[in-house]
Amino acid sequence: MLQSAGIAAGVALSLPLAQLLSQAPAAAVQATPPPPIPPDPTKTPGLPSGALGERSPFEQPALAPLNVMQGATNAPLHKLRGTITPSDLHFQRHHNGIALIDPTKYSLTVHGLVDRPLTFSLDELKRFPSETRTYFVECSGNGRSAYRTPKPEMTPQDVDGMTSNAEWTGVLVSTLLREAGAKTSAKWVLAEGGDAALLSRSIPMEKMQGDAMIAYAQNGEPVRAANGYPARLLLPGYEGNMCIKWLRRLEVISEPNMSRDETVKYTDPLPDGTSRQFSFVMDAKSIITGPAYPEKLSGAGWWPITGLAWTGRGKISRVDVSVDAGRSWQLAEIVGSALPYAHTRFQYMWKWDGKPATLMSRAHDETGYVQPTLEEYRRVRGKGTDYHFNAIRSWTVAADGTVGFGG
Amino acid sequence: MLQSAGIAAGVALSLPLAQLLSQAPAAAVQATPPPPIPPDPTKTPGLPSGALGERSPFEQPALAPLNVMQGATNAPLHKLRGTITPSDLHFQRHHNGIALIDPTKYSLTVHGLVDRPLTFSLDELKRFPSETRTYFVECSGNGRSAYRTPKPEMTPQDVDGMTSNAEWTGVLVSTLLREAGAKTSAKWVLAEGGDAALLSRSIPMEKMQGDAMIAYAQNGEPVRAANGYPARLLLPGYEGNMCIKWLRRLEVISEPNMSRDETVKYTDPLPDGTSRQFSFVMDAKSIITGPAYPEKLSGAGWWPITGLAWTGRGKISRVDVSVDAGRSWQLAEIVGSALPYAHTRFQYMWKWDGKPATLMSRAHDETGYVQPTLEEYRRVRGKGTDYHFNAIRSWTVAADGTVGFGG
Repeated sequence: MLQSAGIAAGVALSLPLAQLLSQAPAAAVQATPPPPIPPDPTKTPGLPSGALGERSPFEQPALAPLNVMQGATNAPLHKLRGTITPSDLHFQRHHNGIALIDPTKYSLTVHGLVDRPLTFSLDELKRFPSETRTYFVECSGNGRSAYRTPKPEMTPQDVDGMTSNAEWTGVLVSTLLREAGAKTSAKWVLAEGGDAALLSRSIPMEKMQGDAMIAYAQNGEPVRAANGYPARLLLPGYEGNMCIKWLRRLEVISEPNMSRDETVKYTDPLPDGTSRQFSFVMDAKSIITGPAYPEKLSGAGWWPITGLAWTGRGKISRVDVSVDAGRSWQLAEIVGSALPYAHTRFQYMWKWDGKPATLMSRAHDETGYVQPTLEEYRRVRGKGTDYHFNAIRSWTVAADGTVGFGG
Repeated sequence: MLQSAGIAAGVALSLPLAQLLSQAPAAAVQATPPPPIPPDPTKTPGLPSGALGERSPFEQPALAPLNVMQGATNAPLHKLRGTITPSDLHFQRHHNGIALIDPTKYSLTVHGLVDRPLTFSLDELKRFPSETRTYFVECSGNGRSAYRTPKPEMTPQDVDGMTSNAEWTGVLVSTLLREAGAKTSAKWVLAEGGDAALLSRSIPMEKMQGDAMIAYAQNGEPVRAANGYPARLLLPGYEGNMCIKWLRRLEVISEPNMSRDETVKYTDPLPDGTSRQFSFVMDAKSIITGPAYPEKLSGAGWWPITGLAWTGRGKISRVDVSVDAGRSWQLAEIVGSALPYAHTRFQYMWKWDGKPATLMSRAHDETGYVQPTLEEYRRVRGKGTDYHFNAIRSWTVAADGTVGFGG
């Protein structure tokens, strides 16, 4: 049995499966020259079905690593349409690698300030009534490099690719808390992952008794390995770091645990030297995904400006688009449905006159919150802040049609 | 360059890509024994990110061929939760293989009874305002073998796996017809595929001027090769055969074309020797996807009965469940949203007493239509009918917990 790099001695992992999980089939395919395609596909029998419906060889989207950061890959937002993020293109952020968990050995323990500490197997979780909802998950640090070191050659994937949207199915946390009998002194719940980071966060009881869920399915099928297989926490609208993957333990407590990821990390430095802590909710945000770098417009005329908007406070109520760097704003159309705590697709038909232009989008949510300008954001949060970047983005269009990220 | 079987001489297709598209990675993985997994994943660094977020090695769902039928593979309905069908698990039905089409050479022509015949490139289609909707596509022959030759050892995938559900993005057909200027004598549109079957169907103008769309994206990404890449027709609620894949031509006409697939095939033989023709709409239908074969219940107690319901006439308004072979019915819960022309998830919490039981589900739609019993269906459509199978399904549960398909 071959030993895979990064796996501790004594634990043999069969190489084919390590390859399956860790290597880059898409990148490998991209390196292959495009295949000779029948000149007239109506004259040549097509290919037979396989066990899976593969992508066209002309379309090989892939996650992309986020600069030098380990354990973070961004979703290719500019290659996607509609609102769903395909499960294999869902962004990834893990703090000590992708845990491999045997579902028959998986368990989730609910303990602490409860009448009856309980441990559930995966099969037991699936025997409770299930919920199905479409929710975005966004890394709290999404957009950091675009804020700190913006470059014209950044794609939407580079700028804001640590957000993704999926249909999740699972059991409400409130169902398990009712089984266990949470005591009245219970105010928080510590959620802990079963990965090698043992990532843990304290979550207010109100959220856990509300819409918090434990998801075992993502876009119809079991949650992907990198997204917390076999079960993960989902806190609609809250920062992704709290949506603990590979969830193994819920400890009902009276005060926040002050774990590493809610003290040293995932607090937001402010200009006065203090930090925002427990800044759970992701504020309303939007990004134009096209036209965007590396696209080049072929000439003046009608172009759809399209993008995504989302908010941790419920539904997107409206998206505005500007083609003159924010001097004037037009109402964009919401394409399809604006679901709560979900990516919402917008579009605006723009008649480009062929002159340089600066494109922006501005999200509003149902609470009346409006996405701030970069200047407003910088004044309040400071240049050194680390999380919750939601300022308005801009894309510059040059007279020759090239598009660049404008900060 | 190696020559791939099924490709005409003189057209070289590089073997790695033919393999990518036609071979069975999931099946190959299933044949591999389960990998040694770290005994304690909290003590072993996990795997690094790859270009794609792969499935857990413990979960390898796959399409399954439909008995002896060539070019048909069923979606694993019993392995799915929620409503979305992952794109690589979307059922496939093609009549001369999966066409491989170069998107830069793709074109769609709108001609016939129009003021201005027009041809659009893929990029041009994408410059029109887009629509995003979640729709089921169901093969008109879905359920044929379950009707003709039911066997207890049929899974939901075997019984009704030729239906799938996805978020589709594209341009409305009405937008293109407006550009071309359809004449008042135009009553039908012939849609033709660019595959080696040159599949063509006549579609009433009313549908084409309504919600018909040309989809270039499926669940957020480009339509999969087997699902009509780079663009396919979608007729919400109509039989899948009409939702022409690899769409290359829309001919506006005054009478139906009487093409092969609307005369010799895709008409429904009736007991009196005549056939129903132009039976476009898929009637309301449901199937319990769990408990179902090959599941085995571990003992008496609470079990969720879950499944899918859908209708070609709009929204599912209600689903009933019976645990006593249809003698009494209980109202099931709709999980999440009941979207028009989309798979709708239902569940019913069943307290099993450990005795033999027969489970059934019955869909109602917003027009008042109710899914018929097998007896009613057989009386009206006859034993030899070929399409539009939507009778109530049953699953038998034995005292030892084994579940079998009951017809």
